[in-house]
Amino acid sequence: MKIEIIKGGVTAARGFRAACCAAGIKYQGRTDMAMLYSDAPCAVAGTFTANVVKAAPVVWDRRIVQDVKTAQAVVVNAGIANAATGAAGMAMCEQTAAFAAKALGVPAEYVLLGSTGVIGPNLPIDRITGGVAAMVPALSDSLEAGTAASRAIMTTDTVNKECAVTFELPAADGQGAVVVRLGGMSKGSGMIHPNMCTMLGYITTDCAIDQALLQQALSDVVSDTFNMISVDGDTSTNDTLLVLANGMAGNRPVAAGSDEYRTFREALFTVCRALAIMMAGDGEGATHLMEMRVVNADTKEHARMLARSVVGSSLVKAMVFGKDANCGRVLCALGYAGVDFDPAVIELYLVGERETLCFYRDGCVQAFDEDKALEILSERAVRFRCDMAMGDEEATAWGCDLTYDYVKINGDYRS
Amino acid sequence: MKIEIIKGGVTAARGFRAACCAAGIKYQGRTDMAMLYSDAPCAVAGTFTANVVKAAPVVWDRRIVQDVKTAQAVVVNAGIANAATGAAGMAMCEQTAAFAAKALGVPAEYVLLGSTGVIGPNLPIDRITGGVAAMVPALSDSLEAGTAASRAIMTTDTVNKECAVTFELPAADGQGAVVVRLGGMSKGSGMIHPNMCTMLGYITTDCAIDQALLQQALSDVVSDTFNMISVDGDTSTNDTLLVLANGMAGNRPVAAGSDEYRTFREALFTVCRALAIMMAGDGEGATHLMEMRVVNADTKEHARMLARSVVGSSLVKAMVFGKDANCGRVLCALGYAGVDFDPAVIELYLVGERETLCFYRDGCVQAFDEDKALEILSERAVRFRCDMAMGDEEATAWGCDLTYDYVKINGDYRS
Repeated sequence: MKIEIIKGGVTAARGFRAACCAAGIKYQGRTDMAMLYSDAPCAVAGTFTANVVKAAPVVWDRRIVQDVKTAQAVVVNAGIANAATGAAGMAMCEQTAAFAAKALGVPAEYVLLGSTGVIGPNLPIDRITGGVAAMVPALSDSLEAGTAASRAIMTTDTVNKECAVTFELPAADGQGAVVVRLGGMSKGSGMIHPNMCTMLGYITTDCAIDQALLQQALSDVVSDTFNMISVDGDTSTNDTLLVLANGMAGNRPVAAGSDEYRTFREALFTVCRALAIMMAGDGEGATHLMEMRVVNADTKEHARMLARSVVGSSLVKAMVFGKDANCGRVLCALGYAGVDFDPAVIELYLVGERETLCFYRDGCVQAFDEDKALEILSERAVRFRCDMAMGDEEATAWGCDLTYDYVKINGDYRS
Repeated sequence: MKIEIIKGGVTAARGFRAACCAAGIKYQGRTDMAMLYSDAPCAVAGTFTANVVKAAPVVWDRRIVQDVKTAQAVVVNAGIANAATGAAGMAMCEQTAAFAAKALGVPAEYVLLGSTGVIGPNLPIDRITGGVAAMVPALSDSLEAGTAASRAIMTTDTVNKECAVTFELPAADGQGAVVVRLGGMSKGSGMIHPNMCTMLGYITTDCAIDQALLQQALSDVVSDTFNMISVDGDTSTNDTLLVLANGMAGNRPVAAGSDEYRTFREALFTVCRALAIMMAGDGEGATHLMEMRVVNADTKEHARMLARSVVGSSLVKAMVFGKDANCGRVLCALGYAGVDFDPAVIELYLVGERETLCFYRDGCVQAFDEDKALEILSERAVRFRCDMAMGDEEATAWGCDLTYDYVKINGDYRS
């Protein structure tokens, strides 16, 4: 089960093409639409926002994942979320999918949609269809096309996010192994919270795997990756994570419970985890990635709740920004996570690249070297570890610090 | 049932005295300790933090409320929280109470304690006892003494918080009515979240009411007052709200289920609500009070969850700071409150002093006059109302905006 990280993103896997364009939806002077296309129809799995208020493209995509179970293209725009747009918003989805389907020569029900941006306004449908018309002839299977697509879907993101891996699986014809590739891109910066997957994420693979198993692998992996990051506690109306598998690697179709399934799941985990950490570290205005690892918890779910509570705490986030070793705040956030534990036995550490400091033990905050703490808190990734001394389950959550820039970005987002 | 607001706070009711002093615990050049004392033993009720990690004075006070049920004095310090201090922290409580008890001539188990400030360090016990020794001879029943006490317990608060009311109840001797007074003070600015009461709150009354009924009234009232405010989503280790009733008004003891009980409950509600709103509006760095009123919900608890979700949203808070009418964020925060509803039927309003704008209706964000929205968002209190169209329950939550100053204050709190 050797998973290797390779260059690339959504076009790393065989048979996937990408394109992007500057459709002028809201932003000027940058690309703001992306398209993905597979040479063959794909099994498609997805997870979506748990928000009661769901954007039109979320409603559209869920129907495809649940009923159609097959897809061949994705059209994404940045700038306007097509959320809280009522019947008009759904009509935009139908028009966009129909237009793209005709241009690509695929059924409209194979066209997935994604939108991110401000809630409320209607999409300028002419610019959307204009964008689709421009992208179809530009579709390319180059790695650069995938990277350009990952840039086109950014909103307040400061860096594009992509990752790809390769691994081997037994060939379909029984003659040795074939190389399988899996890659993805995502965007997300504000409105990120572990209650669901995340903003927009698209993963493509040439692995042959049936739709039910693909969905199972995705649902499994999301709990420990996209659902473990938090930027600001707000769960968006548009969160969407999709995986498309076109089977072009020529592997023997992955069977449930097999070693091959575990390998595939590990590859998917690797890419989802990398994308999730990139999103947490690129939280709006962030200057630090924050990692909270909880070990020796009594249950997996408790470990997750404890870890998420810390990375979601505004006070911990502000303290990380200020490089202030105010460890009582970490302890406090563990205390209100909704998990019962004995404060007298847990131990809390600040984990640096070279050194680890014990913050809290035996029911008391410990004395520590303030200079060393400042040094560790000055690292780009600030890591805490808590030993619950209750069992052997663990979980890790990722977030970022709370900064002046977060307030600035979100105090005037629409303008 | 006429409740009248009067001047004063903890010394408004008969038989209550207050004092404060500058003990130099952490702050310099200001008062940082307060003492309350009642001429007669009091029935005492309280609510405390739900955080698993409880500060030593919380453990101390809970035991008094649950087992002793009587109290006569309160000693509070600002600057150090006496939390995460283990056995040493409990020993500090015992020493402080014993010292104060001796100086006041009351049992040590009648002395309640409160601490607020940084988590971790031990209290400087000499300064604490020195402060107690200085305050005992200074105890005064003047309104000014109550106000000075409300100032001494402030940490990052920018204004002191006190409120008092008066009402009439039948006299104990059956000869007409007597005047009853109830007043309180509170402090709290950061680490405030509706999961429990709030930081520190002390309410005194000369009403004659037994302890069980006093506790019932407090628990009732807290759900719609202190538990409905949020500054930053962090539930402190020290949250404490206490009510002391010394019976000196000479009323016929309040009976369960009576009109008198309803009057008392209303008076307590009035003071708790006023203190809660003052705390929300004085959130760390706040420039606006935010109010979210949810009407026509299917259940009271759902109304509360929806209202709290909005005032707790970082994105809504940043938008209020920026006076940006980005109503999609309010809708989004309603959507992830954990309450199921139909986004097609709810209506969302921005409620100004002179005008009300409809933000969202019929499943769509509505067009509105941006200038008028900016005018309303420039008011000190920014009010939203959401009609759920599901039933007839309602609830209101209060919070504040998220500002640069919140980040500044919390990025470097210990220094």
